[in-house]
Amino acid sequence: MSDIPTDAEAVSGWWRTSIIDMAPGKIAFRGRPVEELIGNVSFAQMIWLMTRGELPDAGQAALLEAALVAGVDHGPQAPSIAAARMAATCGVGLNNAMATAVNMLGDVHGGAGEQCAELYYGIAALMDAGADLPQAVPSGLDNWRSRHGKIVSGFGHRFHKPVDPRAPRLMALVREAAEAGVVSGRFAEIGETVQAELARQRGGRPIAMNIDGATAVIFCELGFEAPLSRGLFCLSRSVGVLAHAWEQTQQGGRNKGPMPPKFLPRYEGE
Amino acid sequence: MSDIPTDAEAVSGWWRTSIIDMAPGKIAFRGRPVEELIGNVSFAQMIWLMTRGELPDAGQAALLEAALVAGVDHGPQAPSIAAARMAATCGVGLNNAMATAVNMLGDVHGGAGEQCAELYYGIAALMDAGADLPQAVPSGLDNWRSRHGKIVSGFGHRFHKPVDPRAPRLMALVREAAEAGVVSGRFAEIGETVQAELARQRGGRPIAMNIDGATAVIFCELGFEAPLSRGLFCLSRSVGVLAHAWEQTQQGGRNKGPMPPKFLPRYEGE
Amino acid sequence: MSDIPTDAEAVSGWWRTSIIDMAPGKIAFRGRPVEELIGNVSFAQMIWLMTRGELPDAGQAALLEAALVAGVDHGPQAPSIAAARMAATCGVGLNNAMATAVNMLGDVHGGAGEQCAELYYGIAALMDAGADLPQAVPSGLDNWRSRHGKIVSGFGHRFHKPVDPRAPRLMALVREAAEAGVVSGRFAEIGETVQAELARQRGGRPIAMNIDGATAVIFCELGFEAPLSRGLFCLSRSVGVLAHAWEQTQQGGRNKGPMPPKFLPRYEGE
Amino acid sequence: MSDIPTDAEAVSGWWRTSIIDMAPGKIAFRGRPVEELIGNVSFAQMIWLMTRGELPDAGQAALLEAALVAGVDHGPQAPSIAAARMAATCGVGLNNAMATAVNMLGDVHGGAGEQCAELYYGIAALMDAGADLPQAVPSGLDNWRSRHGKIVSGFGHRFHKPVDPRAPRLMALVREAAEAGVVSGRFAEIGETVQAELARQRGGRPIAMNIDGATAVIFCELGFEAPLSRGLFCLSRSVGVLAHAWEQTQQGGRNKGPMPPKFLPRYEGE
Repeated sequence: MSDIPTDAEAVSGWWRTSIIDMAPGKIAFRGRPVEELIGNVSFAQMIWLMTRGELPDAGQAALLEAALVAGVDHGPQAPSIAAARMAATCGVGLNNAMATAVNMLGDVHGGAGEQCAELYYGIAALMDAGADLPQAVPSGLDNWRSRHGKIVSGFGHRFHKPVDPRAPRLMALVREAAEAGVVSGRFAEIGETVQAELARQRGGRPIAMNIDGATAVIFCELGFEAPLSRGLFCLSRSVGVLAHAWEQTQQGGRNKGPMPPKFLPRYEGE
Repeated sequence: MSDIPTDAEAVSGWWRTSIIDMAPGKIAFRGRPVEELIGNVSFAQMIWLMTRGELPDAGQAALLEAALVAGVDHGPQAPSIAAARMAATCGVGLNNAMATAVNMLGDVHGGAGEQCAELYYGIAALMDAGADLPQAVPSGLDNWRSRHGKIVSGFGHRFHKPVDPRAPRLMALVREAAEAGVVSGRFAEIGETVQAELARQRGGRPIAMNIDGATAVIFCELGFEAPLSRGLFCLSRSVGVLAHAWEQTQQGGRNKGPMPPKFLPRYEGE
Repeated sequence: MSDIPTDAEAVSGWWRTSIIDMAPGKIAFRGRPVEELIGNVSFAQMIWLMTRGELPDAGQAALLEAALVAGVDHGPQAPSIAAARMAATCGVGLNNAMATAVNMLGDVHGGAGEQCAELYYGIAALMDAGADLPQAVPSGLDNWRSRHGKIVSGFGHRFHKPVDPRAPRLMALVREAAEAGVVSGRFAEIGETVQAELARQRGGRPIAMNIDGATAVIFCELGFEAPLSRGLFCLSRSVGVLAHAWEQTQQGGRNKGPMPPKFLPRYEGE
Repeated sequence: MSDIPTDAEAVSGWWRTSIIDMAPGKIAFRGRPVEELIGNVSFAQMIWLMTRGELPDAGQAALLEAALVAGVDHGPQAPSIAAARMAATCGVGLNNAMATAVNMLGDVHGGAGEQCAELYYGIAALMDAGADLPQAVPSGLDNWRSRHGKIVSGFGHRFHKPVDPRAPRLMALVREAAEAGVVSGRFAEIGETVQAELARQRGGRPIAMNIDGATAVIFCELGFEAPLSRGLFCLSRSVGVLAHAWEQTQQGGRNKGPMPPKFLPRYEGE
């Protein structure tokens, strides 16, 4: 290539990637021929390979898999699931119903894991700079809240009180993995210290670590950058979205609204 | 419950589901407590459980996993991947970028697997009604084309000629699974006979079985209803979508268009 | 240009358009400089210009405007509006909330206008081929139902019985426009005859012409191709979507579900 | 209503709105029967009514209309337009193609108007607190940049240099409207002073006021809250999106990628 790219080079270079290499009859992901991956790596390993560039070992893959399994669904009271089910009655494809739901996994709904990972990494950075855990946690919380506000992503659940059943199970798996040397266990400690600190700040009332708080521990232990916490949650929740959209399709209905037709929204104008 | 539901019953009943059962501190999917699933089933098994209602055995799960791995990505020349990458430069969340792509996996792009499954099931129905394979395939193709048009979903690839590297590998795994008694092998035979018939109709020019044609064989072998072929493909492709949206985020850019800015669309008005 | 396009020509030609012509400092739509359009044409005229290629006269623009005004909203019981309001509480942008709603205006929800326009054009085609109106309407209905099923798009409303208040007003405007020579009035007659025929087929029970049936009359009178009925409805309904998403934003809420949190979906598994 | 709402009241109250009032046979927007609006208000007036609660006078409506006309399209090099056109070839509905584009009008692409309105309102607030315009503009810019970064939304255009043809025309209309007493002209002055200050900061090199900067002037003059700048832009750009999706539909194509198939993305892995 000369210093001045040709038009063809400019066009190809506009869409440069290290993920996939193709030629007629050839597909390789991250340098590995697709036909060697098919049948030899799990779906969870493939997710890791595509987003990280190399394959995880078995212990890492198992931990990622646990997090992906844990987040698949939280039922039709979640706005994303409700929207997917309503979309499935509006005459669009199943892919459109799925997209409708994933689109709603924003900063408040599905982005909580990303924000929680930022909190954990922020605390870890304070520790790397010399703070010990009991200092780093309240400082990290303060820093985080100055950017994101009072409500701490990853903790508290309006429904599962005092315990979200997914969190203790996930944390136990992290502890096991730490003992086996798969991960360091550092972020499990950070997460649980945050949980304790939040309870202390609430005058001793316990607060649940929720699904975002627990999966963020795992994603941080495994070294995923914070925004990928959101992305991985989207992959996980897409499973529940598909199941619900499909169940609704089988139940039927046309233009399903949020509540039975006999109820009308309350008009509050003059 | 009396014959006339109360308002509360009417509201709850509007959102009825067999997928998830919840109470404070309790989440169960298809009757199984989430904490028993986490760490004990793979992500692919969880996909099966959520969409089908029961857990697959190991052989079934492995075959599903192979199909999910095979479809993750086909690079930025695919409109869905390009759109996800462009979206990632427009100041939206990673979930919005992912939704943008999944939304585009419509009848032509991601729905091909669904249509191909319809073709295979249609041929199988003709055989159930007494036709033998050599009769059922051309008849099934005729029936299918009268509904969907001339281009047969699942076969042919504008880029991978004459062979899409994913298909033979997937078909080999189906054959192995059939020998092991995991599946019947019936749809592998149907798929390959369709491929041969299409070549015959083209005057002997071979035609590739593409990713949709091969994964539809697997989904039919495993008993997934046709629309789920599309849904499962969406789950699979979401992985590539995430990887590309994330790579683009790291590459940077603002309002990335489809081609370098120095090229302008051609104006064809008067 | 030689017979073989250069790479630059190939790239530009991949994105050819008759809609917009640009150069640095220059933007023209359908051959008209943007600075001449701004301040001189209405938004409705601009919609016409962009989708049709030329400007409408004042009478045509007024009729289009009436249809656009009529369809802006039908409240939060419509799944699209509910989804937009829920999305607005999930931490996504207002544009994402709007997209969520428009995405749900599919074949059943927002595509009804398109299907109804197909019905009307089909009847008109029968009349062009020699049938008179009393023959063409039942024949056209039969043809349409063989493709789309029993429920006739554009007629009937589960809520507004026996009259949807938008339809008579729109039809009166069409009649006025026909008297003034702006349109032919042909599709008003077709629409009303369809309505009467459907009532007859129901044993004399009257059936409402709904918003899709009435706006399709207008779009056909104005010569818009059937798929544009859906597109124009999307433009119109986007206004209500924006208003509701914004109202919800001001009301606040986080992860708003479809019903108050105290109600749970009904679990119907074993 | 007693102090404790019934279930029916709770459900209705979950979806409270001041926008629309409905009963069988009745639809009223912001207190006005739909049949009185149809045929009597323009589409632009309806947009104002729905988002603001009352009707604008003729001068206000004309200015809103000018802004809506100005923003309809900027061609297929805009990622939103490209994505809509690609979606239109993927076998999804026109509504899905439109949603794909609107979904991409995020903070960088369509949200620029919102951010620019925040800048203008911030400067106005400094003036309300006693600063004069020459002080308020650099201070307001500093405040804004500390939240949003160096690149000032609403100014500069990578293509239209030195002048975006839409801005001077829109500003002239604002000046006319200010002379006629329709608006104050305050934000026109703020906008132009920002433009001059940015040029000064660049060592005297002029910088274009772009479409977002000019329409934000209008939306602020008319009293729209900042987030509605994004929403109104989405309504405006939806017109171009529809026109392009429809043009692409008529051109045909299947799974249209971002560049001609002969070009491949550049693989940059090892």
